[in-house]
Formats: sequence, structure tokens, C-alpha cells
Amino acid sequence: MSMIDRVLTAIDKVSAPTMIHAHCDLPCGVYDPAQARLEAQSVKACQEKHNASDDHDFQTRAITIKEERADLVKHHLWVLWTDYFKPEHLKAHPQLHELFWKATKSAGEAKKTNDESVGQRLIDEIDEIAGIFWETKK
Amino acid sequence: MSMIDRVLTAIDKVSAPTMIHAHCDLPCGVYDPAQARLEAQSVKACQEKHNASDDHDFQTRAITIKEERADLVKHHLWVLWTDYFKPEHLKAHPQLHELFWKATKSAGEAKKTNDESVGQRLIDEIDEIAGIFWETKK
Amino acid sequence: MSMIDRVLTAIDKVSAPTMIHAHCDLPCGVYDPAQARLEAQSVKACQEKHNASDDHDFQTRAITIKEERADLVKHHLWVLWTDYFKPEHLKAHPQLHELFWKATKSAGEAKKTNDESVGQRLIDEIDEIAGIFWETKK
Amino acid sequence: MSMIDRVLTAIDKVSAPTMIHAHCDLPCGVYDPAQARLEAQSVKACQEKHNASDDHDFQTRAITIKEERADLVKHHLWVLWTDYFKPEHLKAHPQLHELFWKATKSAGEAKKTNDESVGQRLIDEIDEIAGIFWETKK
Amino acid sequence: MSMIDRVLTAIDKVSAPTMIHAHCDLPCGVYDPAQARLEAQSVKACQEKHNASDDHDFQTRAITIKEERADLVKHHLWVLWTDYFKPEHLKAHPQLHELFWKATKSAGEAKKTNDESVGQRLIDEIDEIAGIFWETKK
Amino acid sequence: MSMIDRVLTAIDKVSAPTMIHAHCDLPCGVYDPAQARLEAQSVKACQEKHNASDDHDFQTRAITIKEERADLVKHHLWVLWTDYFKPEHLKAHPQLHELFWKATKSAGEAKKTNDESVGQRLIDEIDEIAGIFWETKK
Repeated sequence: MSMIDRVLTAIDKVSAPTMIHAHCDLPCGVYDPAQARLEAQSVKACQEKHNASDDHDFQTRAITIKEERADLVKHHLWVLWTDYFKPEHLKAHPQLHELFWKATKSAGEAKKTNDESVGQRLIDEIDEIAGIFWETKK
Repeated sequence: MSMIDRVLTAIDKVSAPTMIHAHCDLPCGVYDPAQARLEAQSVKACQEKHNASDDHDFQTRAITIKEERADLVKHHLWVLWTDYFKPEHLKAHPQLHELFWKATKSAGEAKKTNDESVGQRLIDEIDEIAGIFWETKK
Repeated sequence: MSMIDRVLTAIDKVSAPTMIHAHCDLPCGVYDPAQARLEAQSVKACQEKHNASDDHDFQTRAITIKEERADLVKHHLWVLWTDYFKPEHLKAHPQLHELFWKATKSAGEAKKTNDESVGQRLIDEIDEIAGIFWETKK
Repeated sequence: MSMIDRVLTAIDKVSAPTMIHAHCDLPCGVYDPAQARLEAQSVKACQEKHNASDDHDFQTRAITIKEERADLVKHHLWVLWTDYFKPEHLKAHPQLHELFWKATKSAGEAKKTNDESVGQRLIDEIDEIAGIFWETKK
Repeated sequence: MSMIDRVLTAIDKVSAPTMIHAHCDLPCGVYDPAQARLEAQSVKACQEKHNASDDHDFQTRAITIKEERADLVKHHLWVLWTDYFKPEHLKAHPQLHELFWKATKSAGEAKKTNDESVGQRLIDEIDEIAGIFWETKK
Repeated sequence: MSMIDRVLTAIDKVSAPTMIHAHCDLPCGVYDPAQARLEAQSVKACQEKHNASDDHDFQTRAITIKEERADLVKHHLWVLWTDYFKPEHLKAHPQLHELFWKATKSAGEAKKTNDESVGQRLIDEIDEIAGIFWETKK
């Protein structure tokens, strides 16, 4: 299988069905943790593709694209933290500061490693944030 | 009500529940029309907020933020068109080229007007694209 | 005095000596709150220039440039929060999360208003962060 | 010859005379396929330089710069497609949608390979678009 | 004539034939003053459209788009100055430093005014640089 | 020591105290050579970290991050050259054009090599510019 084919196959695999939201009932509004989640899935996919390949140039691309995607994860999370969440949310969910801090740190760590469990941890932390986010929307 | 309060109120209104996907069963993968959809909702919200306000500085901000958000809509749609869709999808859905062309043109038109129906039409066109997108995922 | 002259004069005023660091002994390293501080000074200067002018086009520029500068403030602060500060710093300075949250929220508020006291508050909050930052460097 | 010298030599080679427009009579207006063409030449030059070198760090740079340049090609082409071309142009040149789709896909493929013929194909496709563009300008 | 129509008409006017290069024989290479020239034409067009309109929102857009385009002019000129021109060019054309300094300053001034003669001066200065550029290519 | 540990250690080393300004008395205004200086320190740190490592993926990251940081150095220097310095400064300091040209060329050269002396030379040239800058502020 050629390199191009391998990439296309990998992209197909990335697109395989996974749930974006912990629950499906009310994905709403202009703020949406889905934005960070999508980029985090991309980060993890870059790690997986990197590890499944032994083509050096392809690995270089996986590493640099992962770098950009992880930056986008951080950006979307920071926006959510600063712009969406308000003092009353913090009162109800005092763990929010720590959660966002950890999740953005995980995005930074995911740049430095191709360990897919770091990518998965990042996704899990975003899902935890998303859970609280949708809670506040009820 | 002060200007700041009005903005915060407006932001709250923007965040009111609306469905992101035409159907909820399988929001999946790294490509997701939700990215364009979210920015399009933001475009329409900028039009609404602009029209609901008579504060000149606030209107300036609504116009320039709408400009950026409409650019993001275009970008996400273009990526979807070029990167996600493949010849076999075009064969099954020959209207795709025209659909993307119209939708990205609507994003451009939404920059030039505060007519909320243009923002709504943009959202509707993205929903039509999303319908086909999820069709190809089955 | 022509508009151009007025702008140049205003820029000169902006450049008037003010201390960047709360203390001068150890400005060091690649992380430096001076990056956020400089952009925050620019935010406040945009507010001042906006208020000192009655030229409509000039005010439009002041508002949109302020928007960008406030985004840079947020970005530099977020990077500092997530990338520089570590668990041991949080233990010694448990107020850090709240401080960063408030300061980035002030940057957002400074976009929405030309009240110069909001720009000043943003600078003061960054100085408070800088104080802790240099504390951790000792 | 040192690495730096090699790069400078390569840059000189890149700058060797080639025609930007299929015809020279009317390069005009703010829309101009030359913007996409210049970046596509840069993409092909990155492939050539990558292949002519065996310095690992240099190759890494060629790959990541190619990535950015190919993104710019896509961006300029998308803008042309959505913003410049109008329904009457499509009527006269019904192949336009397909042409732009193929060309932007070639830009994406050029990221994934250092096969210089892909870079050349990208340039050829842009030249074909440019031919139609200048046709519409007559 | 509606606002949208007016914009489209204005865009058509912008696209009216003008020569991109001072001479047509050798538009070549990856460095090309045409990149700065195209953006400068856009800057001047924004000034013209601004002055021809009395629609307030449209003028806001003209001012902010001009701001971005002028930044692109500066960027393309700076790249040319630092990256393309070499010591031997400076020896043959000792006015280059001053020319680039003036031209990038004109781009800055064009942000601050809608005086179309400033936009034209910017274009003229780029043409002067382009003349030298193509001289060095012979 | 694991790769992550090595990176964190390296980051700590980067943050070691060094003076940002040639003199400490008047760090002032919205223009400040510190912005270019900080990014140049980051460029040199990337070279050092690259050379201290034998982890291939880490080196790829060091090279691409250095590329971005060197771009920021150039940008901040160009802004200073075009936007801050005025004809009277040039009269008093006629070497300014050449200094900025050399320093931005050094930033370009620092992209192409991991020779730490190039990173150091870049820092030294910025310090020379900073010396003149603060001179003009007196």
C-alpha cells in the first residue's frame, strides 16, 4: 500500500463514528465544547497515524499538524473558560479552574509525545468539561 | 440597562438551545459540518445583536466580528468540500459543488448585510450540506 | 492639527515612560508577563485615543485595534497560566487560577467598553500576576 | 558547499524566469491567479529542494514550509472560486467547479508527497484556471 | 441601486485592467513584487469605495479591510527587503533601504486616511521597488 | 531521564535569569524591543535544545517552533523599524537601516541552522537596536 493510500485509509479510520457529546439531547449555542473535542480527536489521530507509519516525512507532518491542532484545542478551551463560564457556574462547579488547567496542560503534553493515551486523556478531560457545560445549559 | 449588560444579555440569547445537527444519531469524526455551523450561528447572532442595538461602537464590533466569523464559515466549508468529499460522493450527490459554492457565497454576502435572513439562509445551506455529509457516513 | 498629526501625537503620548515590571531586578527568561503587559498598555491607549477623538473613522480603527490587542493579552496570559505555572506554584499561590480568570475576563470586558478604568484594571491585574511570576523566579 | 550555501543556491534557482501568466497582455485587478500561482511555484520548489538535499533538518523545513505554502494555494484558489467567479462565468465555463476542486485537491496531495510532478500538475491546473480567468476579463 | 449592488459594482471597477509589472517580459520566481502590489491596489480600492459610499456600515468594513490589506502590503515588502535583496543588490541600488522604509510607512499612513493619493503613492513606491527588483533579475 | 522530563528541564534552563533590557531605568511605552528579544531568546533556546537532544521527533519540533519564533522576531523588528523610528531618529542614528536589515537577516539565517552562535548574534543585534531605541526615549 502506497503512502498516499495509507494516509487516506488513516483519514477514513479517523472519521469512524464516535460520539462528540457525552449526551446528544441539546448540542446548542455558539459556545460548544465540540470545537475543542474535534481538534482533540485530531490530535489523537495524529498520534495514531504517526505510530502506524514508518515513513519519516509522514511522521514529520503528523508531528507538526498535531502541534497546530493541540494549539487549537488550547485556544477553544481557554475561550470557553474565560468567555463562557461565569462566577455562578464556578460556585456550582468549583473544580472548573483545575479541570481547564489540567486539560490545557494535557494538550501541551500531547505535543511532546506520541503516546496515544495522552491524546485519549485529553479527550476525556474535554468530555468532563462538556458534561458540566451542558449541565449549565439546562 | 448598560451597554455591557446588553451585550451579556445578547450573548445569553445566542446560547439558547438550537440543534447543531439536522439529525442527532451520529455526530462523528474529525470532519464535522458543526464547525461551519457554529460560526454561521455566530454570524447570524452578530446580525441580530447589531440590529437590536443603537450603540455605534457596539455596532462596529458586531460588523467586524461578523466579518471574521463569516471567514471561518468559508474556511470550514472549503476544507469540507476539498478535503472530505471524494469523487464517489460527487457521483452520488452531484449537487455538491453548487451547494458549497452557494453556501460560501452566502457567507460572503452575510458580511455585506445585517439582514438576518441571509444569516439564516447560510445556516440552512450548511444544514443541507450536513445532511449529505452524514448520509455519506452511514 | 490634522488627524494624522493627532494620531502621531497620541502615539508619542502612549510611549511615555512607564515601568513594565513591578520590580526591575530580574526580568528574565522566555516566559515574561511583559508580553501581556505591553498589549494591555496598547488596549488602554486605544481607549484613551478613542475618547480623545471625535473623528468617526479614527474611532472605528481604535475599536478594532483594541479588539485585536485584547485578544493578544488573553493569549499571552493563557500561555503563562497553562504553560509556565506548575502545581508547586499553585500550592504556594492558590489565588493564581482566580487571578488569571479575572484578568482574561477584564481583557474581554475592555473590548466592550472605552472606559479607561477597565484598561487600567487589566494592567493592574497583570502586574499582580507579574509579581507572583517574579516571586517564583527567585 | 555548506548547507546555507545550498539553500541560497536553491533559492536562486527557484527565482529563475518562468512566466506567471499564460498570456501577458492583461494582468489586472485585485483578483489575480498569480497569487495562487506564486505559492504553487513555492510548493514545487520545496519538493525539488527536499529531493536535492540529504540534510535531515533541511528536509524537515522543506516539508513544513511546503505544508504552509500549499495551504496558501488552497486559500487563494478558494477565494477566486467563491468571490470572483459569478453565475454567468459558470454558464460560459461549466468546468470551473471541477477544475477548482481538482486543483485544491492537488494542493492537498502536494503536501503528502515530494513527487515534483504533483507540484507541476498543481501549477498546470492553476494555469488552466488563469486562462479562463483572463478570458472573463476581456 | 442597493448596497450589495454598489459593492459588486465597485468590485468590478477595482478589477479594471491595470498593469501589474512595470514591464511584462520577465515576471518570474517565487519572490514577486506583484504580491505587495495586489494588496496595495486593494488598499486604494478600499479608500475609493469608502469615499464613494455614505453607508455607515459599509464604511466600517472598508476601513477594517483596508487595515488588513495594508498589513499584507507591509508584510510582503518586508519579506522582499529582508529575504530577497542581498548585499550586492544594495551596492548597486543604495536607495533600497530608504525606498522600502518609505513604502512600508506609506502603507501605515494609508491605514490612517482615506485620501486616495496616499494609496496611489503606495502603489507608485512599490512600482519603483519592482523596477529595481526586475533589474536585478536580468 | 524521559523525553518529557528532558523538555521540562530544558524549559527551566531557558527561564534562567538574563537581562531583557541593556539598561533597566526606562522600559516604557507600547513599542519595546523586548518583544523581539524574547522571541530571539526562544530561537536560541530551540537551537540549544535541538543540539542537546538525540530524539528525532523532539528535534523536528525544535526546528518547526524555531521557524515560527524567528518569524515573530522578524515581525517585531520590522514593526519597530517602520512604525516606531522616524526620520529624525535616522538622522541621529544613520546605521539603523543596516542594523535592522542585518538583524532580520540573522533571524532568517537562524531558521536554517542550529548553530547557537547565530541565535546569539541575533540577540546581540537586537540589543544594539534596543540601545538606540532607549537612547531616543531619553
